Amino acid sequence: PKIVTLPGDGIGPEVTAAAVAVLREVAPDVTIEEHLIGGIAYDTHGDPFPQVTRDALKDADAVLLGTVGGAQDSAWNLLPRHLRPESGLLALRKALGCYANLRPVRVQPGLEHLSPLKAELARGVDILIVRELLGGVYFDGDRKIDGDTAYNTMRYTTPEVERVARVAFWAAEQRKGRVTSVDKANVLEVSELWRRDVTALRDREYRGIHLNHEYVDSVAMLIVSDPSRYDVIVTENLFGDILSDLAAVIPGSLGLMPSASLGDGAGLFEPIHGSAPDIAGKGVANPAAAIMSAGMLLRHGLKRPEGANQIDRAVALALREHPTRDLGGRADTQTFTRAVLSALE
Amino acid sequence: PKIVTLPGDGIGPEVTAAAVAVLREVAPDVTIEEHLIGGIAYDTHGDPFPQVTRDALKDADAVLLGTVGGAQDSAWNLLPRHLRPESGLLALRKALGCYANLRPVRVQPGLEHLSPLKAELARGVDILIVRELLGGVYFDGDRKIDGDTAYNTMRYTTPEVERVARVAFWAAEQRKGRVTSVDKANVLEVSELWRRDVTALRDREYRGIHLNHEYVDSVAMLIVSDPSRYDVIVTENLFGDILSDLAAVIPGSLGLMPSASLGDGAGLFEPIHGSAPDIAGKGVANPAAAIMSAGMLLRHGLKRPEGANQIDRAVALALREHPTRDLGGRADTQTFTRAVLSALE
Ligand SMILES: CC(C)[C@H](C(=O)O)[C@@H](O)C(=O)O
Ligand SMILES: CC(C)[C@H](C(=O)O)[C@@H](O)C(=O)O
Repeated sequence: PKIVTLPGDGIGPEVTAAAVAVLREVAPDVTIEEHLIGGIAYDTHGDPFPQVTRDALKDADAVLLGTVGGAQDSAWNLLPRHLRPESGLLALRKALGCYANLRPVRVQPGLEHLSPLKAELARGVDILIVRELLGGVYFDGDRKIDGDTAYNTMRYTTPEVERVARVAFWAAEQRKGRVTSVDKANVLEVSELWRRDVTALRDREYRGIHLNHEYVDSVAMLIVSDPSRYDVIVTENLFGDILSDLAAVIPGSLGLMPSASLGDGAGLFEPIHGSAPDIAGKGVANPAAAIMSAGMLLRHGLKRPEGANQIDRAVALALREHPTRDLGGRADTQTFTRAVLSALE
Repeated sequence: PKIVTLPGDGIGPEVTAAAVAVLREVAPDVTIEEHLIGGIAYDTHGDPFPQVTRDALKDADAVLLGTVGGAQDSAWNLLPRHLRPESGLLALRKALGCYANLRPVRVQPGLEHLSPLKAELARGVDILIVRELLGGVYFDGDRKIDGDTAYNTMRYTTPEVERVARVAFWAAEQRKGRVTSVDKANVLEVSELWRRDVTALRDREYRGIHLNHEYVDSVAMLIVSDPSRYDVIVTENLFGDILSDLAAVIPGSLGLMPSASLGDGAGLFEPIHGSAPDIAGKGVANPAAAIMSAGMLLRHGLKRPEGANQIDRAVALALREHPTRDLGGRADTQTFTRAVLSALE
């Protein structure tokens, strides 16, 4: 199998290198090809998602991404929108057809103290957020800024809702069988469609799943005050962006949050943290999320659950014995990565 | 001065009665006129914001609202959207021209233990969220559900952005002088306008204010993991809905969160909690948020800061000595209200 890595900007190259080292150990037969994306791709090719990267994806079985983007005051942010690093990422998601973004939120036993929540609330949390990734205000072409007015359009169609809801129901079948669909149906027509279609699909094809609907404002509250009420959460693109970053605080560090984006072709696997320009190049970034994303790549991309489990166990061990700085420890990127490598059985 | 009270649905009448009792004590000269809104107004007049209520607002100096809406499975939710209780509330906001919703988030000294956050994070939190309340996807007429597609439009104009930003800057001048404007400018054109206009207004008229811009997903994370970094937060309607409910978890109970909605005419004052149909009519609801909203009414609506301070002090005392059930205590609505009344100096 062939994997394309896209290290990207900021701490992306450092954490991707760590993930690649672990991947090579667990799956020595994979071919790894590295390409450019984001700000660095713009600097090199004048395009945050250049044709050479696009071409390399054609025969890839999975894609491992680092991070894209610069600091708030970076020159990249002064570029026209379609040339900015983030646009490269959005174009990549679109090109791969990855419509379902899976973000597991798990508090590892023994690591409850890292959470900003009281330990009794954090203990045992195990949520899977399924975020729709190719629709809504992110991609709808009906958008404009013009003089003193601007707008974006939050649009969904039934097929878009159904395909991501299917992923959520399927995931719930391997978990506790409960799905919470999140919307703002008391205000938005687009949420009315979302709620109707998710319900109809459950009634038609997933009768064994327990489905409930909650409003996004209420979920924002409940996910931090009573996280153990959730199993699988499914929601549209913008709500999913907000809620999954929010949920990421529960384990105590964005550095612990991997993600998988699945669709029709090759999957995209990436840590959810940003490019952290303030610590880029210093060798201190926590690579755990990137390494766990490589684990998700093995599980969902290459269908190698044993390799994925191996990685998860090794990361959990390394986190306990060599916590990185974001976790209040002292391990740098290399020390942590070596700890993971030597914990692989 | 004349105040219109709109107790509404669920626990609304109970908490409004408590707030009225306190108001009568602190401001015995005000005239209070009660009217219907929400589900109960629909049941009585076939309209969640009936003409008789609309008329009563004409010469009101301020409006004190309870809550609107029923349980998720309430028959009201099967009505056409414009007849549902929530539409009554939205129409009321519009009729009053209340474009700036102020939601203070304060952790009272000695009540840190109520927070789901670790006490050291909750201690001393004092944030003011200013939510734009009449624009964005909530009110834009370009919206539709039709067969298998639906959309809403998130639109803003410069005057809409400026008037609410002015309120945020003005509030920051009485506080620590810092404003964080929240958007999703890396994805949305409407956020680009928002950011540009907020910045221009600061540069023109509020040079003493320290302004920074953050993305909504990042703020969702930071507001619970590092709340003390914020002073005043200003944001558009939908982001404000989500973030202010989220921030409400910091003090430990929605029951502690009052709000004020200000605009051109009479202000609207309401607790941010919902109608809590599960405990409605049982006399156990926590009326603190409604009572504090009456305090905000005195401060912002009638310009009587002494009365407002009197109420705030009395509520803080009552919370310590007679905590209600949502706070792990045993006081019912009446006991708590009496405690507030007797703590008024
Ligand atoms: C960088 C940005 C465009 C992106 C998004 O909003 O999707 C990020 O926040 C994410 O969640 O992956
Ligand atoms: C009831 C609903 C329409 C309302 C809103 O979304 O504005 C509520 O959530 C609020 O925040 O006051």
